[in-house]
Amino acid sequence: MTILRQPTRAGVRDAAAKLAAVVPPTPIFVHEIKGVAVTFKAESLQPMGAFKLRGAWHRLTAIEPAQRARGVVAFSSGNHAQGVAWTARRLGMPAVIVMPADAPRVKRESTLAMGAEVVDYDRATESREKIAAHLAHSRGAVLVPSFDDPWVIEGQGSAGIEAAEQMRAMGLGLPAHVVTPCGGGGLAAGLALALPDARVTVVEPEGWDDMRRSLDAGWIEPVGADAPPTACDSLQTKEVSPLTFEVLARRGATGVAVSEMQVREAQRWAARHLRLVVEPGGAVALAALLGGQVPVEPGMLVILSGGNVDPDAYAGVLAGEIMQRAHETI
Amino acid sequence: MTILRQPTRAGVRDAAAKLAAVVPPTPIFVHEIKGVAVTFKAESLQPMGAFKLRGAWHRLTAIEPAQRARGVVAFSSGNHAQGVAWTARRLGMPAVIVMPADAPRVKRESTLAMGAEVVDYDRATESREKIAAHLAHSRGAVLVPSFDDPWVIEGQGSAGIEAAEQMRAMGLGLPAHVVTPCGGGGLAAGLALALPDARVTVVEPEGWDDMRRSLDAGWIEPVGADAPPTACDSLQTKEVSPLTFEVLARRGATGVAVSEMQVREAQRWAARHLRLVVEPGGAVALAALLGGQVPVEPGMLVILSGGNVDPDAYAGVLAGEIMQRAHETI
Repeated sequence: MTILRQPTRAGVRDAAAKLAAVVPPTPIFVHEIKGVAVTFKAESLQPMGAFKLRGAWHRLTAIEPAQRARGVVAFSSGNHAQGVAWTARRLGMPAVIVMPADAPRVKRESTLAMGAEVVDYDRATESREKIAAHLAHSRGAVLVPSFDDPWVIEGQGSAGIEAAEQMRAMGLGLPAHVVTPCGGGGLAAGLALALPDARVTVVEPEGWDDMRRSLDAGWIEPVGADAPPTACDSLQTKEVSPLTFEVLARRGATGVAVSEMQVREAQRWAARHLRLVVEPGGAVALAALLGGQVPVEPGMLVILSGGNVDPDAYAGVLAGEIMQRAHETI
Repeated sequence: MTILRQPTRAGVRDAAAKLAAVVPPTPIFVHEIKGVAVTFKAESLQPMGAFKLRGAWHRLTAIEPAQRARGVVAFSSGNHAQGVAWTARRLGMPAVIVMPADAPRVKRESTLAMGAEVVDYDRATESREKIAAHLAHSRGAVLVPSFDDPWVIEGQGSAGIEAAEQMRAMGLGLPAHVVTPCGGGGLAAGLALALPDARVTVVEPEGWDDMRRSLDAGWIEPVGADAPPTACDSLQTKEVSPLTFEVLARRGATGVAVSEMQVREAQRWAARHLRLVVEPGGAVALAALLGGQVPVEPGMLVILSGGNVDPDAYAGVLAGEIMQRAHETI
């Protein structure tokens, strides 16, 4: 897709105003970590379980009315698919989601339940990018990228405008430091635009910390071929986009990486202390505070970006606490 | 304790105004069940994980300033203890919680972490009522009952005022029918006072449905000696109080009972569709809608009253889904 423009703070504010008319603000919660009060923004409590409807809403509503009937195409087996499907249904637009044939049943069912058409592809032999581009071309539909798009970035950033307003209303002051999960960087870049006075830290799973390495290097570095398996399915992006990278680099954002064990620990902490179901990729920012990669200080805003867990895997994560406790008492 | 007055709707409104200055409203969520939009009030997202701080706040702030330094006493191993401890700490009052010596470690730790003193008793040989009464007398402290108290009932009812305001602000209209978990009936009676135009249904675990039987009979009937084990630890009240019973009977409230399997199914549903951790007793109202005991109709308000799960047991509940799915595919 040709990039026609850069995302802007004005665009983020516009997105926030649009979103405010559609979904209520996701709640914020204050809880102490290491004796310091930390504010959490629970994007996991969006109707489709993640922040992704923000970017989708801002993008789809920017499509010319005459074009809308031809619909949208997205490729994703996860939260972006559901964000696009949720938005398209609300706007009465057809949506096609290109999804691997072996995607988890629960994700396929959720996407179908939101009224989208699902087109399968074979992970081993086919390219989802090509299939999606072909579908968009043949139907005259708009392809909606999951992060490499100015509208999508601005839409995700609306979470930051919302959180700042909520913190002010609760007498918590403006966020001094926002810590956020990072896949392709759409949410992180949007937050950086939304909160021009806050320090920005992006968090990724170990081995998938290409944004961290890119920000350190000053140019885009893709994920290594030796990246280990991760439970953070929503953060497995192979390469960030110039658009998201440049916004974050310009703001002096930095990154840290967390281990799989730290992610599981953060999911358990969120269930116990916040009573929230948070998916692995949604818990990495919290994991970085608990794990010590990001020192806890006053004025922190931590994004819990999604809550769409695989039920089996999530039960296993919580059951991990049993093993750990048994170990403690030995 | 001598009952000095009846709880009133004016008292509930007063409690709601007091609470609004202390904690933000717990969020409401709208989700379809059987094709009908249902509103959920997530009291599980209170800072201490349940609605109980409402009653405690309204009760403790009604104590004369000169009396406050002598503190409060409560007996409970659960959410009431934490509600009283949380409130006492915020008000700078000493709190003593009488708790069985074999109470779960996590509950004892939470209560201690909130700054309360814990006094143990032996479930087999001692009476917690007597110990608490003795403590209150010897220290000149105020005994705070978990439901048999007009302030406590009014305080719990503030959740209903809050939910009605939130529903109106979101264009959902006023609640036509409130469905709520019921232990001693403090929350249910408070909601009945808060929402004078709504139908009221209370939900209890099978065998512990003494409020349902009492409302059917027209007089108070205690729980049978043969009541089966239940995971709903927060609803194991042996006998409701005249105060809560009379409010509910006057309003024509009715009750239903749900099975243990339905409670587990409701906990899984809440984790998957609302991304909320809900404790067994907090999920019974939802269970009654999913299970069909309460037909789903427009304008329903369903209370999710608490989210303080035992981590091991909760992992087992979620893992149940694995077994169930495996069974489905056979």
